[in-house]
Amino acid sequence: METIGYIIIQIFILLLAAKVLGSLFERFRIPSITGEILAGVIFINLILFFPGIGDLLHFDPDEFMHDDGHFLHVMGELGIIFLLFIVGLETKFSDLMKVGRAAMYVAVLGIVIPLLGGLALMLAFDPNNFNLALLIGTAMFAMSTGITIEVLRNMNAMGSVEAKVIIGAAVIDDILCLSLLAVISGIVTPGIDMASIVANTAIVAIFLIAAFGFVSYIRKIADRRKRKMIERYRSADMHGDIAVGCDVSEFHEKRSHPSELSILGIAVLVCLGMAALSTTIGLAGIIGAFIAGMLFAEFKETIPCEENFNAVTSFMLPFFFIYVGMMVRFDDFDLGLLPLLAALTVVAVLTKFVSGYWGARKGKLSKDSSMLIGVSMIPRGEVGIIVASIGLALGVFSNSMFTSVILMVLATSVIAPPLILWAYRRMQNRSQTENDEPRLT
Amino acid sequence: METIGYIIIQIFILLLAAKVLGSLFERFRIPSITGEILAGVIFINLILFFPGIGDLLHFDPDEFMHDDGHFLHVMGELGIIFLLFIVGLETKFSDLMKVGRAAMYVAVLGIVIPLLGGLALMLAFDPNNFNLALLIGTAMFAMSTGITIEVLRNMNAMGSVEAKVIIGAAVIDDILCLSLLAVISGIVTPGIDMASIVANTAIVAIFLIAAFGFVSYIRKIADRRKRKMIERYRSADMHGDIAVGCDVSEFHEKRSHPSELSILGIAVLVCLGMAALSTTIGLAGIIGAFIAGMLFAEFKETIPCEENFNAVTSFMLPFFFIYVGMMVRFDDFDLGLLPLLAALTVVAVLTKFVSGYWGARKGKLSKDSSMLIGVSMIPRGEVGIIVASIGLALGVFSNSMFTSVILMVLATSVIAPPLILWAYRRMQNRSQTENDEPRLT
Repeated sequence: METIGYIIIQIFILLLAAKVLGSLFERFRIPSITGEILAGVIFINLILFFPGIGDLLHFDPDEFMHDDGHFLHVMGELGIIFLLFIVGLETKFSDLMKVGRAAMYVAVLGIVIPLLGGLALMLAFDPNNFNLALLIGTAMFAMSTGITIEVLRNMNAMGSVEAKVIIGAAVIDDILCLSLLAVISGIVTPGIDMASIVANTAIVAIFLIAAFGFVSYIRKIADRRKRKMIERYRSADMHGDIAVGCDVSEFHEKRSHPSELSILGIAVLVCLGMAALSTTIGLAGIIGAFIAGMLFAEFKETIPCEENFNAVTSFMLPFFFIYVGMMVRFDDFDLGLLPLLAALTVVAVLTKFVSGYWGARKGKLSKDSSMLIGVSMIPRGEVGIIVASIGLALGVFSNSMFTSVILMVLATSVIAPPLILWAYRRMQNRSQTENDEPRLT
Repeated sequence: METIGYIIIQIFILLLAAKVLGSLFERFRIPSITGEILAGVIFINLILFFPGIGDLLHFDPDEFMHDDGHFLHVMGELGIIFLLFIVGLETKFSDLMKVGRAAMYVAVLGIVIPLLGGLALMLAFDPNNFNLALLIGTAMFAMSTGITIEVLRNMNAMGSVEAKVIIGAAVIDDILCLSLLAVISGIVTPGIDMASIVANTAIVAIFLIAAFGFVSYIRKIADRRKRKMIERYRSADMHGDIAVGCDVSEFHEKRSHPSELSILGIAVLVCLGMAALSTTIGLAGIIGAFIAGMLFAEFKETIPCEENFNAVTSFMLPFFFIYVGMMVRFDDFDLGLLPLLAALTVVAVLTKFVSGYWGARKGKLSKDSSMLIGVSMIPRGEVGIIVASIGLALGVFSNSMFTSVILMVLATSVIAPPLILWAYRRMQNRSQTENDEPRLT
């Protein structure tokens, strides 16, 4: 049998396991993505501990770990990029501006507190190794939006104020993280040019200002077009051309439309183009995709791509969570590091929760909302894994320390979803009973 | 920048080029997939001739050629598997049975004539190398359904009798090819066990009989359910529970439905599972996907997955054509082989056309229909490339001969789409003017 045949079998097994575990977890009110991550964890470790399975499936776990262009990685990355496009599609620019202050508090505190927490913890373990402590602190503060957003979407909570704060914080967080990561790797790596770090940060700032400026410009144009359309519709109505009672969307309907699948093609291109652009200047690809989604949100009525884009994303996204799970290898784990891992995880969970809660309270949100935002900040993601790789490459991290950081990142992403679900249900129940307390005061 | 960032840029560039060239070609009435294939050809050869571009994009063409698990290959393979699922979804089992005789003629002649043609041509070039001639003949007869089907779908011609004959022939062709390929590689490779070839062929036959038996069994159950539903609906109607005028599909609507995205997930799993199964026993994955699609076709009303599956496929499929184009490398091509390449291509085109036309005529189809079926048989595909790889691995083919066979395969897939378009339009125009001549007599 050819290699590609084995790959189809691998994909089938992974998707089947993710689906079965995801559905099982949902029955017990645990978000399905926890099950999808677990499917990845089980798959890779079964192969590591029973190499016969890997031989049977022609899956080489070492090749997988060292190949950044592995198809599971690529498809997962596309999945998370598409998810952020859809989030952008569901986000109104004006809403994001409204929660700007709260989001800023959450983002800034969410960097400072975990950084200091990680630094303090590691200096307590080993006071002489400042570089190690600094990198652990860095791995602590980089949040992952994908997991939180997927949990919130599954609960139909993306329209809530809390979700807006989380998304706003994620965008700001990513920008600050990037700048700080550049500075910190400048400190840890000898001989990196500070001028290039400053220049890079400036480029990012210009890109974001330009992108958001463009989005709000497009928004104005779209608004004007809509107004004109309504005026034309009214005057047509006065002349008796259009039956009274049909609304503007029907008027839209009458103009010639490109087919929905070709709209999907264009949306995918714009999404990937913006993701590529933001990657080029050093931002995460998901930020560009999010902005692209916000652009398309302005033309929802004339060029609808939401339904088809959702279908593509629902196929691609599980690969992201499966891939995250497959990063967890228990084969070279030193059991002596278990206390450190536990300490790291506790500090990671607590610092992000405290900073999210505190930031949201300072942003004038209710206690229940702040609780939800606090737990939503807990999952760490790709950036934590990147920092760990940098640490390993520079020789600051040992192999076991690398695994510990990866496991800490994973633990947060398994712990968080049930907590988010719990906090959201709690908030909803309270607001139903108390009802009089405003969520954003 | 990380590897994955460069990959997002590569994907963006490839999809953009495919979209631009595809749209451009469509304006000149050439099917868009020809443009998509060309996008792949241009991309890989620009990188081969200007290595600076490859460095800039972090794309290593040699790594790409030798990595069967490259993400472009995997995504393309998924795309073609999904396409065949949709074809199955649009195919009625009874229709396929009706054209069985014509399809059988087309398939059998479509293997015998190209095999003999290739054998004769190569023996004329080099009478002493029988193994080389036999392998070239083998590379000649393996058809590719993907390209033809995509062209026919774009013309909304999948419901026609001709399309049914083509699909039926493709299924039979794949089974015969498999058996014959096993026998021929047995002749060329010394020391292969004939018993295992026979056993393998038997397994394939059992699988197909079981699969089609299962499909027709499911069909009967579905029919019975539908009848019962109608009876229940009628009796309900008599009791005045349901308003007169609402039809059965509305009655269906009233039962609880799983969400459409979770249906998509199940459909993808069944499709990949069947593809994996048919790969395991040595058939092409697309055959399993086609059977899975036929299964789902029986439940179209209760579990609709067509629209969402179409969206996913329209995203994945371009990768298949881009990948096919990227197989064409002009860097190590020996210009002295140009006459041979031309001869190979002419023989490949003519033998498949003649056998398709002749087979269809023997199957009692009209001249115009037979013409369409003849040109539809022209594209060769993956199996040709596989045969070439076997030839290279066994040392029967030189590097240049290998490239020539690949180029022949590619040439047929670029030549065929416009011919199919032309033949289909011609057939339609004639049938509109003559109208009295039946297409299937």
